[in-house]
Amino acid sequence: MGAGQLMDSRFLKALRRQAVDCTPVWLMRQAGRYLPEYRATRERAGNFLNLCKTPELACEVTLQPLARFPLDAAILFSDILTIPDAMGLGLTLDEGVGPRFSRPLESPAAVATLGIPDPETDLRYVTDAVRLIKRELGGRTPLIGFAGSPWTLATYMIEGGGHHEFKRAKEFLYGAPAETERLVNLLADAVTVYLQAQIAAGVDAVMVFDTWGGVLTTDAYRRFSLAPMQKIVQGLKGDIPSILFSKGGGLWLEDVAATGCSAVGCDWSVDLGNARRRVGDVVALQGNLDPAILRAPIPAIEQEVDRVLNAFGPGAGHVFNLGHGITPDINPDHVAAMVERVHSQSARPTA
Amino acid sequence: MGAGQLMDSRFLKALRRQAVDCTPVWLMRQAGRYLPEYRATRERAGNFLNLCKTPELACEVTLQPLARFPLDAAILFSDILTIPDAMGLGLTLDEGVGPRFSRPLESPAAVATLGIPDPETDLRYVTDAVRLIKRELGGRTPLIGFAGSPWTLATYMIEGGGHHEFKRAKEFLYGAPAETERLVNLLADAVTVYLQAQIAAGVDAVMVFDTWGGVLTTDAYRRFSLAPMQKIVQGLKGDIPSILFSKGGGLWLEDVAATGCSAVGCDWSVDLGNARRRVGDVVALQGNLDPAILRAPIPAIEQEVDRVLNAFGPGAGHVFNLGHGITPDINPDHVAAMVERVHSQSARPTA
Repeated sequence: MGAGQLMDSRFLKALRRQAVDCTPVWLMRQAGRYLPEYRATRERAGNFLNLCKTPELACEVTLQPLARFPLDAAILFSDILTIPDAMGLGLTLDEGVGPRFSRPLESPAAVATLGIPDPETDLRYVTDAVRLIKRELGGRTPLIGFAGSPWTLATYMIEGGGHHEFKRAKEFLYGAPAETERLVNLLADAVTVYLQAQIAAGVDAVMVFDTWGGVLTTDAYRRFSLAPMQKIVQGLKGDIPSILFSKGGGLWLEDVAATGCSAVGCDWSVDLGNARRRVGDVVALQGNLDPAILRAPIPAIEQEVDRVLNAFGPGAGHVFNLGHGITPDINPDHVAAMVERVHSQSARPTA
Repeated sequence: MGAGQLMDSRFLKALRRQAVDCTPVWLMRQAGRYLPEYRATRERAGNFLNLCKTPELACEVTLQPLARFPLDAAILFSDILTIPDAMGLGLTLDEGVGPRFSRPLESPAAVATLGIPDPETDLRYVTDAVRLIKRELGGRTPLIGFAGSPWTLATYMIEGGGHHEFKRAKEFLYGAPAETERLVNLLADAVTVYLQAQIAAGVDAVMVFDTWGGVLTTDAYRRFSLAPMQKIVQGLKGDIPSILFSKGGGLWLEDVAATGCSAVGCDWSVDLGNARRRVGDVVALQGNLDPAILRAPIPAIEQEVDRVLNAFGPGAGHVFNLGHGITPDINPDHVAAMVERVHSQSARPTA
């Protein structure tokens, strides 16, 4: 497929809710630790952050899953926390420890000290990786760019790393709502210019990962997570397809669809048939196999793939994916069986 | 209020969706570590499990929050894991470690070895506590009995304790669905006789805590969590009010309401106005203040209380509660302010 034919790729057509020969599929974290070749490259990089920051290596791991499986999209290998890192918070990503910031936001007042990184200088390693990957892909497969959602970035910046209770982030939100709003709006601007730079460098679609929107009340979700994501979607120039994914956001699919995005990511708790009845005339849907099924025997995996395909039903507008990222303990043969099943079971007779 | 007048209590009337003078309120884990008097009693008990297993002490801590706050219901002090403990799995509950079973379910085949505990012998300490609490309450305040949901109990029995990814539980479910169904059905029977014994001992309403239903797909939720809960609700004799609470189950409120329960518990992600439009003509709703707000200054707490009350709106069928259990770091004065606000803001002129 030449660069000019990318628009005819299954993935981009499905995002536009156009008919496809079979359902396109890719996997969140498809370039990751479950692949031995990824672990080898990461070993060479020294650590995860070096891997993200070295365009040649980021390109290499981005392409690895495509060499193994007939996936319908590549996704830039990077991390959602590159923006706060470029803002000066001092990111480390050590295995077993998870993300840590050496200079987290100490107080709501500290929001005023933050600036918007310039992607072509402060995050040059990302746009360089995009250009390299696009060259290597040679127009065969569309490339997805991405960023973390403003609320999700804010939680890490406030907590200083991973967390389960979001104690500090919620103290921030409930105790200083005006400053929290300022923070997520600033992050919305930072994400917009960052995604715009990825688009200029060549990505064919963008996705915003809202990993932690689901921990909020409906009101707080709308104000602190959805509103800044809408600002991002509306700030993107051109007609680049955009995918918004709020994990745990199944209650709010109508709100997400109303932002103007092209597709809504669904975690595995959502029934895609129900989701399609709710928002399928407005957006495409992406998802939503439970990643845990990939530990089961292949016949059980195939049964669950069929269940997800049947839940969506016939017709256009489905991008198959997991309901969350693939975990490191998965056998790549199980992924191969999954991808094969999606394509074979969804194949439609062509005219 | 005498024993005969309990049916006129705000709590029991609200569960029947009858008009009340103001919205009743209680808190999940209202007898807990945020109270210094609780910590003192627990200290005397030696550990959490001794506290559960000593009726006099369980009674004492059950009554402590009622002495401080004008709460509209008491809830039996106990733990959801008493049933698997009585099944012989060897429960320990150590602070900082969380629940552990010394003999977790080793394999799906082990389900066949499990029996149903006899509440009046194996769990006598629970029914003794209920009788004692009822005597001490003297008909002033209704008492809620409770149990864990079959699926939630199953996750702990399979994982051997707390967990975040539910790796083993999902391997069980996806790899051995028939045995998983057998397990949750057995647990449904065990929960039914357990709740029936609590009812015989005097509780005025029962609640089933489905802490981990929300980690399932819609299909798996219906089969492995909802179906056994429905079996419990339908197996209860008499017209005792029942409350079902699936945390993270906001997508499935219609399914929960259709079980025949009296009320559906809602976590804080649910908008109560939306929930009421969906199921308010079938069931009462219980919830759903974000417990994290209790760390904020009192004016912010009052604002969120008002938001929850306004979301439900005027009319009958609301039991105010948190969207999940209160955490140990909360200032009791903040709880007092919350309870006061619920009552004062929801007060209705009486004829």
